[in-house]
Amino acid sequence: MSKNICFIDGLEGILKYREIDINQLVELPYDAVSYLLIQGELPGDQELAEYAACLHGEREVNREVIDVIRMCNFNIDSIEALRTIVSFISQFDPDINDSSPEGNMRKAIRLIAKIPTIVAAYFRIANGKQPVPPDPSLSHGANFLYMLRGNKPTQLEAEVMEKDFILSAEHELNASTFSSRVTASTLSDLYSAVVSGLCTLKGPLHGGARAEVVTMIEEIACPENAENYVLDKLSKKEKIMGFGHRVYKTYDPRGTIFKQLAKQLAEAKGDMHWYNTAEVVENTVIRELVEKKGKPIYPNVDFYSGVIYKYMDIPPQLATSIFAIGRVSGWIAHCFDQYEKKKIIRPRAFMLDEC
Amino acid sequence: MSKNICFIDGLEGILKYREIDINQLVELPYDAVSYLLIQGELPGDQELAEYAACLHGEREVNREVIDVIRMCNFNIDSIEALRTIVSFISQFDPDINDSSPEGNMRKAIRLIAKIPTIVAAYFRIANGKQPVPPDPSLSHGANFLYMLRGNKPTQLEAEVMEKDFILSAEHELNASTFSSRVTASTLSDLYSAVVSGLCTLKGPLHGGARAEVVTMIEEIACPENAENYVLDKLSKKEKIMGFGHRVYKTYDPRGTIFKQLAKQLAEAKGDMHWYNTAEVVENTVIRELVEKKGKPIYPNVDFYSGVIYKYMDIPPQLATSIFAIGRVSGWIAHCFDQYEKKKIIRPRAFMLDEC
Repeated sequence: MSKNICFIDGLEGILKYREIDINQLVELPYDAVSYLLIQGELPGDQELAEYAACLHGEREVNREVIDVIRMCNFNIDSIEALRTIVSFISQFDPDINDSSPEGNMRKAIRLIAKIPTIVAAYFRIANGKQPVPPDPSLSHGANFLYMLRGNKPTQLEAEVMEKDFILSAEHELNASTFSSRVTASTLSDLYSAVVSGLCTLKGPLHGGARAEVVTMIEEIACPENAENYVLDKLSKKEKIMGFGHRVYKTYDPRGTIFKQLAKQLAEAKGDMHWYNTAEVVENTVIRELVEKKGKPIYPNVDFYSGVIYKYMDIPPQLATSIFAIGRVSGWIAHCFDQYEKKKIIRPRAFMLDEC
Repeated sequence: MSKNICFIDGLEGILKYREIDINQLVELPYDAVSYLLIQGELPGDQELAEYAACLHGEREVNREVIDVIRMCNFNIDSIEALRTIVSFISQFDPDINDSSPEGNMRKAIRLIAKIPTIVAAYFRIANGKQPVPPDPSLSHGANFLYMLRGNKPTQLEAEVMEKDFILSAEHELNASTFSSRVTASTLSDLYSAVVSGLCTLKGPLHGGARAEVVTMIEEIACPENAENYVLDKLSKKEKIMGFGHRVYKTYDPRGTIFKQLAKQLAEAKGDMHWYNTAEVVENTVIRELVEKKGKPIYPNVDFYSGVIYKYMDIPPQLATSIFAIGRVSGWIAHCFDQYEKKKIIRPRAFMLDEC
């Protein structure tokens, strides 16, 4: 019996993947966390080297992918294109008809490896530039930033990107993971299950929220505007993006780590502007909602990650797709678990209100 | 409060959409049943005429769709391509950013109208032929067969196709509908929700079963082989495709209607071969499992629909996509219901075993 994929204590603010605390996981490479999620145990040195070599070797996409990206509408969220392209590439997978655990593992590696390449190629083409081929010598995070920009990121940026992918990798039965599981429960293929996850992640109540945080921070523009922005929103009973969570009733442990990362990045860049803006938003929300009204509304996973994207020049249109780069390992871990169950998820209508 | 989208009594074998029995619904045009599902009430004559005019006017697909279909792998199930193309066309929808009920209704009409065109164009191109443009004067069923074949179907064939779409249109919280709802619950767009449904329908435990019925009937080849085929499968404890259902513990009411339609079609074609083959399969399963063992294993919605596809020269690779042509109205009805709820479906892990 493998360890539980995820453990969340929403009252204490504890998150573990496969029984390992998120604060430990964030010190590992993404490849190791991906291995942990999918295989159930942390890799040894040799296992990690082999898994990483497989992942790094599968990053390239074929010519047809670039052709279809060129046909995309670049005025909408990039996850629209990502959803189409992930669906499109399944037909090129040599294991498409092999649903054995080995065939599924090869598909999993291709999906995890190619999704960053698709997102980066989309971004380059949308900006009138040539796609940058992946560099297999770079980590998951460093390679992604390299493919986006065409030059190597700083070590800190690469580390922050890795940690972003790790913090986004898994969160139990969130809506997108649940929809991947429902798809996998019919024994549909792994690409379909991941596309289903993408379809669901796109929603503004889920992964779409991160893009809205980036947009909100841009709209607020400076620390001086932040308090009034929040007070104005609250007086109109509107939501502040990036706050509150269905499961956490205290500070989201991912939010804590993201906040530290945002601060490190701001200090390294010598530009506290966006960090300070965000911190005033946070302090105002906590004063108004937590302290005055006793509501457990803290920054969630999306809030300071949105700030990080501002510092890395990542536009809001990419935010949900980048969330997907991290989350795909979690989706796949759940799909593998669901495939073993061999039982279709088919609730009756009366169960709907319990979810 | 609108009427329940679907009512199933699995013990009595009763199925209703919006409180109307399936035996009545099957006498209506598909357009009327689609309207009923989505709007909650049967249309009057003028409402039906207007809805049908909208649907029939939105059937065409653009040049880019044909280009991407030409890049598809034709050796795999057509639903692979359908999933990609439905995802791809969302970016051309002028209402892509309009999530108002009116915007969503226009998207719904485009989805219902264009899916048959995509499936038929795929089939034509896969067979080295030019796509046939839709004919707005034809019914949903007749037009689909016309686009597949390039010539008008007989009146009986057109009627059978309409009824196939109606019988496939809705079935409460089956896995694909549930995954569409999970996707819609994050307020993701209607195309994403329908793509999620397609991802899930593809599975062999769900819509994929219909293709396997067509393949099985072909494999059995003649009535004389059918009894031994079933006995052999049962002795190896293998499943007979198209039998049994998680909800029905008696004859599936859709199976009863499909059986009558298969018989009508066989008689009209003066060729009882496939019908007789299927009937021996059915009689053997009922004798061995229902009568001898008391198990409620009756033909389900897939069994005689598979026989109908044999008579209509529809290959197994199209069966799941044709299921989707009917089911999309049901998916959309559930999505609209979910959008009104504005509540994310986010079960906790312990709920998984209850579904």
